[in-house]
Amino acid sequence: MPTDPTDPNAPGGHRPAAPTDRVRVRRKPDRGHYDRATIDAILDAGLVAHVGYVVDGQPYVVPTLYWRGGDRVLWHGSSASRMIRAVEAGAPVCLTVSQIDSIILARSGFNHSADYRSVVVVGVATPVVGEDKARALDAFVDSLVPGRAADLRPMTEKELKQTAVVSLALDEASAKVRDAGLGDDPGDETWPVWAGTIPVRRTFGTPEPASDLPPGIELPDGVRRLIER
Amino acid sequence: MPTDPTDPNAPGGHRPAAPTDRVRVRRKPDRGHYDRATIDAILDAGLVAHVGYVVDGQPYVVPTLYWRGGDRVLWHGSSASRMIRAVEAGAPVCLTVSQIDSIILARSGFNHSADYRSVVVVGVATPVVGEDKARALDAFVDSLVPGRAADLRPMTEKELKQTAVVSLALDEASAKVRDAGLGDDPGDETWPVWAGTIPVRRTFGTPEPASDLPPGIELPDGVRRLIER
Repeated sequence: MPTDPTDPNAPGGHRPAAPTDRVRVRRKPDRGHYDRATIDAILDAGLVAHVGYVVDGQPYVVPTLYWRGGDRVLWHGSSASRMIRAVEAGAPVCLTVSQIDSIILARSGFNHSADYRSVVVVGVATPVVGEDKARALDAFVDSLVPGRAADLRPMTEKELKQTAVVSLALDEASAKVRDAGLGDDPGDETWPVWAGTIPVRRTFGTPEPASDLPPGIELPDGVRRLIER
Repeated sequence: MPTDPTDPNAPGGHRPAAPTDRVRVRRKPDRGHYDRATIDAILDAGLVAHVGYVVDGQPYVVPTLYWRGGDRVLWHGSSASRMIRAVEAGAPVCLTVSQIDSIILARSGFNHSADYRSVVVVGVATPVVGEDKARALDAFVDSLVPGRAADLRPMTEKELKQTAVVSLALDEASAKVRDAGLGDDPGDETWPVWAGTIPVRRTFGTPEPASDLPPGIELPDGVRRLIER
Protein backbone atom coordinates (compact mmCIF):
# COMPACT_ATOMS: atom_id res chain seq x y z
CA MET A 1 0.00 0.00 0.00
CA PRO A 2 1.52 3.31 -1.02
CA THR A 3 2.16 5.94 1.61
CA ASP A 4 0.29 9.22 1.60
CA PRO A 5 1.01 10.76 -1.80
CA THR A 6 0.52 14.20 -0.29
CA ASP A 7 3.57 13.78 1.92
CA PRO A 8 6.72 13.80 -0.20
CA ASN A 9 8.82 13.21 2.93
CA ALA A 10 6.95 10.16 4.17
CA PRO A 11 9.30 7.23 4.74
CA GLY A 12 9.33 5.23 1.55
CA GLY A 13 6.95 7.72 -0.03
CA HIS A 14 7.38 9.17 -3.46
CA ARG A 15 5.89 12.20 -5.07
CA PRO A 16 3.60 11.66 -8.06
CA ALA A 17 5.27 12.48 -11.35
CA ALA A 18 4.10 15.24 -13.68
CA PRO A 19 1.07 14.11 -15.71
CA THR A 20 2.60 15.61 -18.87
CA ASP A 21 5.72 17.41 -19.93
CA ARG A 22 3.67 20.58 -20.52
CA VAL A 23 3.08 21.13 -16.82
CA ARG A 24 6.27 19.59 -15.45
CA VAL A 25 8.15 22.08 -13.29
CA ARG A 26 11.49 22.32 -15.09
CA ARG A 27 13.28 25.09 -13.24
CA LYS A 28 13.68 24.13 -9.56
CA PRO A 29 11.98 20.73 -9.98
CA ASP A 30 12.02 20.26 -6.19
CA ARG A 31 9.33 22.96 -6.04
CA GLY A 32 7.00 20.93 -8.29
CA HIS A 33 4.04 19.01 -6.87
CA TYR A 34 1.59 16.92 -8.84
CA ASP A 35 -0.64 15.45 -6.15
CA ARG A 36 -4.24 16.62 -6.08
CA ALA A 37 -4.14 17.42 -2.36
CA THR A 38 -1.48 20.10 -2.92
CA ILE A 39 -3.14 21.38 -6.10
CA ASP A 40 -6.62 21.50 -4.56
CA ALA A 41 -5.43 23.27 -1.41
CA ILE A 42 -3.88 26.08 -3.47
CA LEU A 43 -6.92 26.36 -5.74
CA ASP A 44 -9.32 26.38 -2.78
CA ALA A 45 -7.37 29.12 -1.00
CA GLY A 46 -7.34 31.40 -4.03
CA LEU A 47 -9.83 33.92 -5.31
CA VAL A 48 -8.57 35.15 -8.68
CA ALA A 49 -7.15 33.09 -11.53
CA HIS A 50 -5.34 34.37 -14.60
CA VAL A 51 -6.59 32.67 -17.74
CA GLY A 52 -4.39 32.64 -20.83
CA TYR A 53 -5.70 32.07 -24.33
CA VAL A 54 -4.41 32.78 -27.82
CA VAL A 55 -5.94 34.77 -30.68
CA ASP A 56 -3.96 35.08 -33.93
CA GLY A 57 -0.80 33.93 -32.19
CA GLN A 58 -1.06 36.62 -29.51
CA PRO A 59 -1.55 35.44 -25.92
CA TYR A 60 -4.01 37.26 -23.69
CA VAL A 61 -4.10 36.90 -19.92
CA VAL A 62 -7.34 37.80 -18.17
CA PRO A 63 -7.92 37.89 -14.41
CA THR A 64 -11.15 36.23 -13.33
CA LEU A 65 -12.82 34.84 -10.24
CA TYR A 66 -12.96 31.04 -10.34
CA TRP A 67 -14.01 28.10 -8.27
CA ARG A 68 -13.21 24.40 -8.05
CA GLY A 69 -15.86 21.73 -8.48
CA GLY A 70 -14.41 18.30 -7.80
CA ASP A 71 -11.97 17.41 -10.54
CA ARG A 72 -12.49 20.60 -12.50
CA VAL A 73 -11.85 24.30 -12.16
CA LEU A 74 -14.59 26.61 -13.42
CA TRP A 75 -15.01 30.25 -14.30
CA HIS A 76 -17.72 32.39 -15.81
CA GLY A 77 -18.06 35.41 -18.00
CA SER A 78 -20.32 37.26 -20.33
CA SER A 79 -21.44 35.06 -23.21
CA ALA A 80 -20.22 37.91 -25.45
CA SER A 81 -16.69 38.16 -24.07
CA ARG A 82 -13.76 37.50 -26.36
CA MET A 83 -12.18 35.20 -23.80
CA ILE A 84 -15.33 33.13 -23.31
CA ARG A 85 -15.93 32.86 -27.04
CA ALA A 86 -12.36 31.72 -27.69
CA VAL A 87 -12.45 29.22 -24.84
CA GLU A 88 -15.88 27.86 -25.83
CA ALA A 89 -14.58 27.43 -29.38
CA GLY A 90 -11.95 25.03 -28.05
CA ALA A 91 -8.88 27.26 -27.81
CA PRO A 92 -6.19 25.77 -25.58
CA VAL A 93 -6.11 27.58 -22.24
CA CYS A 94 -3.83 27.91 -19.27
CA LEU A 95 -5.33 28.81 -15.92
CA THR A 96 -2.88 29.97 -13.28
CA VAL A 97 -3.53 30.72 -9.62
CA SER A 98 -0.79 32.20 -7.49
CA GLN A 99 -0.40 33.42 -3.95
CA ILE A 100 2.72 35.18 -2.72
CA ASP A 101 3.44 34.35 0.92
CA SER A 102 6.54 36.40 1.64
CA ILE A 103 9.18 38.64 0.18
CA ILE A 104 12.71 37.48 0.93
CA LEU A 105 15.25 40.26 1.44
CA ALA A 106 18.66 38.57 1.27
CA ARG A 107 22.20 39.99 1.61
CA SER A 108 22.72 39.67 -2.15
CA GLY A 109 20.43 40.75 -4.95
CA PHE A 110 20.69 37.25 -6.42
CA ASN A 111 19.22 35.61 -3.32
CA HIS A 112 16.29 38.00 -3.09
CA SER A 113 13.24 35.87 -3.64
CA ALA A 114 9.68 35.17 -2.63
CA ASP A 115 7.87 32.31 -1.02
CA TYR A 116 4.79 31.47 -3.03
CA ARG A 117 2.27 28.82 -4.01
CA SER A 118 0.97 28.50 -7.56
CA VAL A 119 -1.03 26.12 -9.71
CA VAL A 120 -1.01 25.86 -13.48
CA VAL A 121 -3.73 23.97 -15.36
CA VAL A 122 -3.62 23.52 -19.13
CA GLY A 123 -6.06 21.96 -21.55
CA VAL A 124 -9.22 22.66 -23.47
CA ALA A 125 -12.18 23.89 -21.47
CA THR A 126 -15.75 22.70 -21.87
CA PRO A 127 -18.86 24.92 -21.91
CA VAL A 128 -21.22 24.18 -19.05
CA VAL A 129 -24.77 24.38 -20.35
CA GLY A 130 -28.43 23.89 -19.47
CA GLU A 131 -29.31 23.02 -15.90
CA ASP A 132 -25.66 22.30 -15.19
CA LYS A 133 -24.92 25.96 -15.86
CA ALA A 134 -27.50 27.19 -13.35
CA ARG A 135 -26.19 24.72 -10.80
CA ALA A 136 -22.61 25.77 -11.49
CA LEU A 137 -23.45 29.44 -10.95
CA ASP A 138 -25.07 28.56 -7.63
CA ALA A 139 -21.93 26.61 -6.73
CA PHE A 140 -19.85 29.69 -7.62
CA VAL A 141 -21.76 31.86 -5.12
CA ASP A 142 -21.62 29.06 -2.53
CA SER A 143 -17.85 28.73 -3.05
CA LEU A 144 -17.54 32.24 -1.65
CA VAL A 145 -20.29 32.06 0.97
CA PRO A 146 -21.56 28.52 1.62
CA GLY A 147 -25.36 28.31 1.43
CA ARG A 148 -25.83 31.79 0.01
CA ALA A 149 -27.19 30.81 -3.42
CA ALA A 150 -30.43 29.43 -1.96
CA ASP A 151 -31.16 32.78 -0.28
CA LEU A 152 -30.77 34.93 -3.39
CA ARG A 153 -33.36 36.40 -5.71
CA PRO A 154 -33.68 33.58 -8.29
CA MET A 155 -31.84 33.85 -11.59
CA THR A 156 -33.89 34.96 -14.59
CA GLU A 157 -33.76 33.28 -17.99
CA LYS A 158 -32.23 36.44 -19.45
CA GLU A 159 -29.46 36.50 -16.83
CA LEU A 160 -28.72 32.85 -17.44
CA LYS A 161 -28.51 33.44 -21.16
CA GLN A 162 -26.09 36.34 -20.76
CA THR A 163 -23.75 34.28 -18.60
CA ALA A 164 -21.42 31.58 -19.80
CA VAL A 165 -19.66 29.02 -17.62
CA VAL A 166 -16.67 26.95 -18.70
CA SER A 167 -14.85 24.18 -16.90
CA LEU A 168 -11.36 22.76 -17.25
CA ALA A 169 -10.33 19.32 -16.02
CA LEU A 170 -7.51 19.16 -13.49
CA ASP A 171 -5.96 16.26 -15.44
CA GLU A 172 -3.02 18.32 -16.63
CA ALA A 173 -2.03 20.44 -13.68
CA SER A 174 0.93 21.16 -11.47
CA ALA A 175 1.69 23.12 -8.36
CA LYS A 176 4.89 25.02 -7.65
CA VAL A 177 5.67 25.93 -4.07
CA ARG A 178 8.57 27.80 -2.52
CA ASP A 179 8.54 27.89 1.25
CA ALA A 180 12.26 27.95 1.90
CA GLY A 181 12.47 31.43 3.43
CA LEU A 182 15.78 33.27 3.42
CA GLY A 183 18.66 31.47 1.70
CA ASP A 184 21.87 33.46 1.68
CA ASP A 185 25.15 32.08 0.39
CA PRO A 186 27.54 30.84 3.08
CA GLY A 187 29.73 33.77 4.09
CA ASP A 188 27.15 36.41 3.19
CA GLU A 189 25.56 36.38 6.63
CA THR A 190 28.09 38.85 8.00
CA TRP A 191 27.39 41.41 5.28
CA PRO A 192 26.22 44.53 7.14
CA VAL A 193 22.70 44.84 5.75
CA TRP A 194 19.33 43.98 7.22
CA ALA A 195 18.05 40.64 5.92
CA GLY A 196 14.87 38.73 6.57
CA THR A 197 11.45 37.98 5.26
CA ILE A 198 8.28 40.05 4.98
CA PRO A 199 5.02 38.09 5.16
CA VAL A 200 2.47 38.90 2.45
CA ARG A 201 -1.17 38.08 2.92
CA ARG A 202 -4.49 38.56 1.21
CA THR A 203 -6.90 39.74 3.85
CA PHE A 204 -10.61 40.51 3.93
CA GLY A 205 -11.72 43.70 5.66
CA THR A 206 -14.86 44.45 7.63
CA PRO A 207 -17.97 43.79 5.51
CA GLU A 208 -19.79 46.96 4.50
CA PRO A 209 -23.57 46.40 4.43
CA ALA A 210 -25.62 47.85 1.57
CA SER A 211 -26.81 51.36 2.39
CA ASP A 212 -30.37 50.21 1.70
CA LEU A 213 -30.20 46.97 3.69
CA PRO A 214 -33.57 46.50 5.39
CA PRO A 215 -33.32 46.55 9.20
CA GLY A 216 -33.03 43.21 10.95
CA ILE A 217 -30.85 41.45 8.40
CA GLU A 218 -27.75 40.26 10.22
CA LEU A 219 -24.36 39.44 8.72
CA PRO A 220 -24.60 35.74 7.76
CA ASP A 221 -22.25 33.22 9.36
CA GLY A 222 -20.99 32.30 5.90
CA VAL A 223 -19.73 35.84 5.31
CA ARG A 224 -18.09 35.80 8.72
CA ARG A 225 -16.32 32.58 7.78
CA LEU A 226 -15.19 34.04 4.44
CA ILE A 227 -13.50 37.00 6.05
CA GLU A 228 -11.76 34.73 8.55
CA ARG A 229 -10.45 32.48 5.79
CA MET B 1 -4.44 72.90 -24.94
CA PRO B 2 -5.96 69.57 -23.98
CA THR B 3 -7.17 69.08 -20.45
CA ASP B 4 -5.53 66.59 -18.14
CA PRO B 5 -5.83 63.23 -19.91
CA THR B 6 -5.77 61.48 -16.55
CA ASP B 7 -9.08 63.00 -15.54
CA PRO B 8 -11.90 61.54 -17.63
CA ASN B 9 -14.38 63.78 -15.85
CA ALA B 10 -12.57 67.06 -16.39
CA PRO B 11 -14.82 69.64 -18.07
CA GLY B 12 -14.19 69.32 -21.77
CA GLY B 13 -11.81 66.48 -21.07
CA HIS B 14 -11.77 63.24 -22.94
CA ARG B 15 -10.25 59.90 -22.14
CA PRO B 16 -7.43 58.72 -24.37
CA ALA B 17 -8.51 56.05 -26.83
CA ALA B 18 -7.12 52.53 -26.86
CA PRO B 19 -3.71 52.46 -28.56
CA THR B 20 -4.71 49.34 -30.49
CA ASP B 21 -7.68 47.06 -30.87
CA ARG B 22 -5.77 44.26 -29.12
CA VAL B 23 -5.90 45.99 -25.74
CA ARG B 24 -9.19 47.85 -26.15
CA VAL B 25 -11.59 46.97 -23.33
CA ARG B 26 -14.55 45.54 -25.25
CA ARG B 27 -16.83 44.26 -22.52
CA LYS B 28 -17.84 47.13 -20.23
CA PRO B 29 -15.88 49.75 -22.21
CA ASP B 30 -16.59 52.33 -19.48
CA ARG B 31 -14.15 50.37 -17.31
CA GLY B 32 -11.32 50.84 -19.82
CA HIS B 33 -8.56 53.41 -19.26
CA TYR B 34 -5.67 54.13 -21.57
CA ASP B 35 -3.88 57.01 -19.86
CA ARG B 36 -0.45 56.32 -18.46
CA ALA B 37 -1.28 57.79 -15.06
CA THR B 38 -3.95 55.14 -14.46
CA ILE B 39 -1.82 52.35 -15.94
CA ASP B 40 1.31 53.35 -14.00
CA ALA B 41 -0.56 53.66 -10.69
CA ILE B 42 -1.86 50.10 -11.00
CA LEU B 43 1.52 48.73 -12.07
CA ASP B 44 3.32 50.57 -9.26
CA ALA B 45 0.90 49.24 -6.62
CA GLY B 46 1.29 45.63 -7.73
CA LEU B 47 3.83 43.00 -6.81
CA VAL B 48 3.14 39.98 -9.01
CA ALA B 49 2.41 39.93 -12.74
CA HIS B 50 1.12 37.01 -14.77
CA VAL B 51 3.03 36.64 -18.03
CA GLY B 52 1.46 34.75 -20.90
CA TYR B 53 3.45 33.28 -23.77
CA VAL B 54 2.78 30.60 -26.37
CA VAL B 55 4.70 27.42 -27.20
CA ASP B 56 3.35 25.17 -29.97
CA GLY B 57 -0.01 26.93 -29.85
CA GLN B 58 -0.42 26.32 -26.11
CA PRO B 59 -0.54 29.38 -23.86
CA TYR B 60 1.35 29.32 -20.58
CA VAL B 61 0.75 31.81 -17.77
CA VAL B 62 3.55 32.27 -15.26
CA PRO B 63 3.41 34.41 -12.11
CA THR B 64 6.47 36.57 -11.60
CA LEU B 65 7.63 39.59 -9.65
CA TYR B 66 8.02 42.63 -11.90
CA TRP B 67 8.83 46.29 -11.74
CA ARG B 68 8.23 49.36 -13.88
CA GLY B 69 11.07 51.45 -15.25
CA GLY B 70 9.75 54.57 -16.96
CA ASP B 71 7.92 53.55 -20.11
CA ARG B 72 8.60 49.85 -19.72
CA VAL B 73 7.66 46.99 -17.44
CA LEU B 74 10.44 44.56 -16.59
CA TRP B 75 10.81 41.10 -15.10
CA HIS B 76 13.63 38.67 -14.57
CA GLY B 77 14.17 34.96 -14.50
CA SER B 78 16.72 32.25 -14.85
CA SER B 79 18.50 32.43 -18.20
CA ALA B 80 17.56 28.76 -18.55
CA SER B 81 13.81 29.14 -17.96
CA ARG B 82 11.41 28.17 -20.73
CA MET B 83 9.51 31.43 -20.33
CA ILE B 84 12.63 33.59 -20.54
CA ARG B 85 13.94 31.67 -23.55
CA ALA B 86 10.63 32.02 -25.39
CA VAL B 87 10.35 35.71 -24.57
CA GLU B 88 13.96 36.45 -25.49
CA ALA B 89 13.38 34.67 -28.80
CA GLY B 90 10.70 37.23 -29.63
CA ALA B 91 7.51 35.38 -28.72
CA PRO B 92 4.53 37.71 -28.31
CA VAL B 93 3.72 38.17 -24.64
CA CYS B 94 0.90 39.47 -22.51
CA LEU B 95 1.71 40.78 -19.05
CA THR B 96 -1.26 41.21 -16.73
CA VAL B 97 -1.35 42.74 -13.27
CA SER B 98 -4.52 42.61 -11.22
CA GLN B 99 -5.64 43.63 -7.78
CA ILE B 100 -9.03 42.73 -6.37
CA ASP B 101 -10.36 45.46 -4.09
CA SER B 102 -13.66 44.01 -2.91
CA ILE B 103 -16.11 41.18 -3.28
CA ILE B 104 -19.65 42.36 -4.02
CA LEU B 105 -22.41 40.25 -2.48
CA ALA B 106 -25.61 41.31 -4.23
CA ARG B 107 -29.21 40.13 -3.80
CA SER B 108 -29.01 38.19 -7.08
CA GLY B 109 -26.30 35.85 -8.25
CA PHE B 110 -26.07 37.83 -11.47
CA ASN B 111 -25.11 41.04 -9.69
CA HIS B 112 -22.44 39.40 -7.57
CA SER B 113 -19.22 41.00 -8.67
CA ALA B 114 -15.87 42.36 -7.60
CA ASP B 115 -14.22 45.74 -7.65
CA TYR B 116 -10.76 45.43 -9.15
CA ARG B 117 -7.95 47.18 -11.00
CA SER B 118 -6.00 45.46 -13.74
CA VAL B 119 -3.51 46.29 -16.46
CA VAL B 120 -2.82 44.32 -19.62
CA VAL B 121 0.32 44.93 -21.69
CA VAL B 122 0.94 43.11 -24.96
CA GLY B 123 3.88 43.12 -27.33
CA VAL B 124 7.29 41.64 -27.86
CA ALA B 125 9.76 41.99 -25.02
CA THR B 126 13.41 42.92 -25.35
CA PRO B 127 16.32 41.28 -23.53
CA VAL B 128 18.15 43.70 -21.24
CA VAL B 129 21.87 42.98 -21.48
CA GLY B 130 25.31 44.11 -20.39
CA GLU B 131 25.55 46.94 -17.90
CA ASP B 132 21.88 47.72 -18.42
CA LYS B 133 21.06 44.32 -16.96
CA ALA B 134 23.05 44.90 -13.79
CA ARG B 135 21.46 48.32 -13.43
CA ALA B 136 18.01 46.85 -14.04
CA LEU B 137 18.50 44.22 -11.33
CA ASP B 138 19.53 46.96 -8.89
CA ALA B 139 16.40 48.87 -9.90
CA PHE B 140 14.33 45.74 -9.21
CA VAL B 141 15.62 45.54 -5.61
CA ASP B 142 15.17 49.29 -5.20
CA SER B 143 11.59 49.03 -6.51
CA LEU B 144 10.81 46.96 -3.42
CA VAL B 145 13.02 48.80 -0.93
CA PRO B 146 14.38 52.12 -2.23
CA GLY B 147 18.15 52.42 -1.80
CA ARG B 148 18.65 48.79 -0.82
CA ALA B 149 20.69 47.69 -3.87
CA ALA B 150 23.68 49.84 -2.88
CA ASP B 151 23.88 48.14 0.52
CA LEU B 152 23.95 44.56 -0.79
CA ARG B 153 26.82 42.19 -1.29
CA PRO B 154 27.80 42.98 -4.92
CA MET B 155 26.61 40.77 -7.73
CA THR B 156 29.11 38.25 -9.10
CA GLU B 157 29.70 37.65 -12.79
CA LYS B 158 28.28 34.15 -12.40
CA GLU B 159 25.07 35.44 -10.80
CA LEU B 160 24.68 38.02 -13.54
CA LYS B 161 25.15 35.35 -16.20
CA GLN B 162 22.51 33.10 -14.65
CA THR B 163 19.94 35.88 -14.55
CA ALA B 164 18.03 37.24 -17.51
CA VAL B 165 16.05 40.48 -17.59
CA VAL B 166 13.47 41.36 -20.20
CA SER B 167 11.51 44.54 -20.72
CA LEU B 168 8.24 45.29 -22.46
CA ALA B 169 7.20 48.73 -23.66
CA LEU B 170 3.98 50.17 -22.27
CA ASP B 171 2.99 51.31 -25.79
CA GLU B 172 0.21 48.76 -26.09
CA ALA B 173 -1.43 48.68 -22.70
CA SER B 174 -4.80 49.19 -21.08
CA ALA B 175 -6.24 49.35 -17.61
CA LYS B 176 -9.61 48.02 -16.55
CA VAL B 177 -11.11 49.29 -13.34
CA ARG B 178 -14.36 48.50 -11.55
CA ASP B 179 -15.04 50.60 -8.50
CA ALA B 180 -18.83 50.71 -8.65
CA GLY B 181 -19.51 48.75 -5.47
CA LEU B 182 -22.86 47.06 -5.03
CA GLY B 183 -25.24 47.34 -7.98
CA ASP B 184 -28.52 45.53 -7.45
CA ASP B 185 -31.41 45.70 -9.90
CA PRO B 186 -34.20 48.13 -8.92
CA GLY B 187 -36.69 46.18 -6.83
CA ASP B 188 -34.15 43.68 -5.53
CA GLU B 189 -33.24 45.79 -2.50
CA THR B 190 -36.12 44.41 -0.47
CA TRP B 191 -35.09 40.79 -1.03
CA PRO B 192 -34.46 39.39 2.46
CA VAL B 193 -30.78 38.55 2.22
CA TRP B 194 -27.69 40.30 3.51
CA ALA B 195 -25.99 42.34 0.78
CA GLY B 196 -22.90 44.45 0.80
CA THR B 197 -19.24 44.52 -0.04
CA ILE B 198 -16.20 42.87 1.53
CA PRO B 199 -12.93 44.76 1.14
CA VAL B 200 -9.99 42.68 -0.06
CA ARG B 201 -6.44 43.84 0.52
CA ARG B 202 -2.91 42.66 0.06
CA THR B 203 -1.10 43.36 3.29
CA PHE B 204 2.48 43.02 4.49
CA GLY B 205 3.05 41.48 7.90
CA THR B 206 5.72 42.20 10.49
CA PRO B 207 9.21 41.70 8.99
CA GLU B 208 11.00 38.65 10.38
CA PRO B 209 14.76 39.29 10.69
CA ALA B 210 17.20 36.58 9.65
CA SER B 211 18.01 34.28 12.55
CA ASP B 212 21.71 35.02 12.01
CA LEU B 213 21.36 38.79 11.67
CA PRO B 214 24.39 40.35 13.39
CA PRO B 215 23.42 42.49 16.39
CA GLY B 216 23.00 46.20 15.85
CA ILE B 217 21.44 46.04 12.37
CA GLU B 218 18.13 47.87 12.55
CA LEU B 219 15.14 47.47 10.25
CA PRO B 220 15.77 49.94 7.40
CA ASP B 221 13.33 52.77 6.78
CA GLY B 222 12.78 51.45 3.26
CA VAL B 223 11.43 48.17 4.60
CA ARG B 224 9.21 50.07 6.99
CA ARG B 225 7.83 52.06 4.05
CA LEU B 226 7.26 48.88 2.04
CA ILE B 227 5.11 47.27 4.70
CA GLU B 228 3.10 50.48 5.06
CA ARG B 229 2.45 50.67 1.33
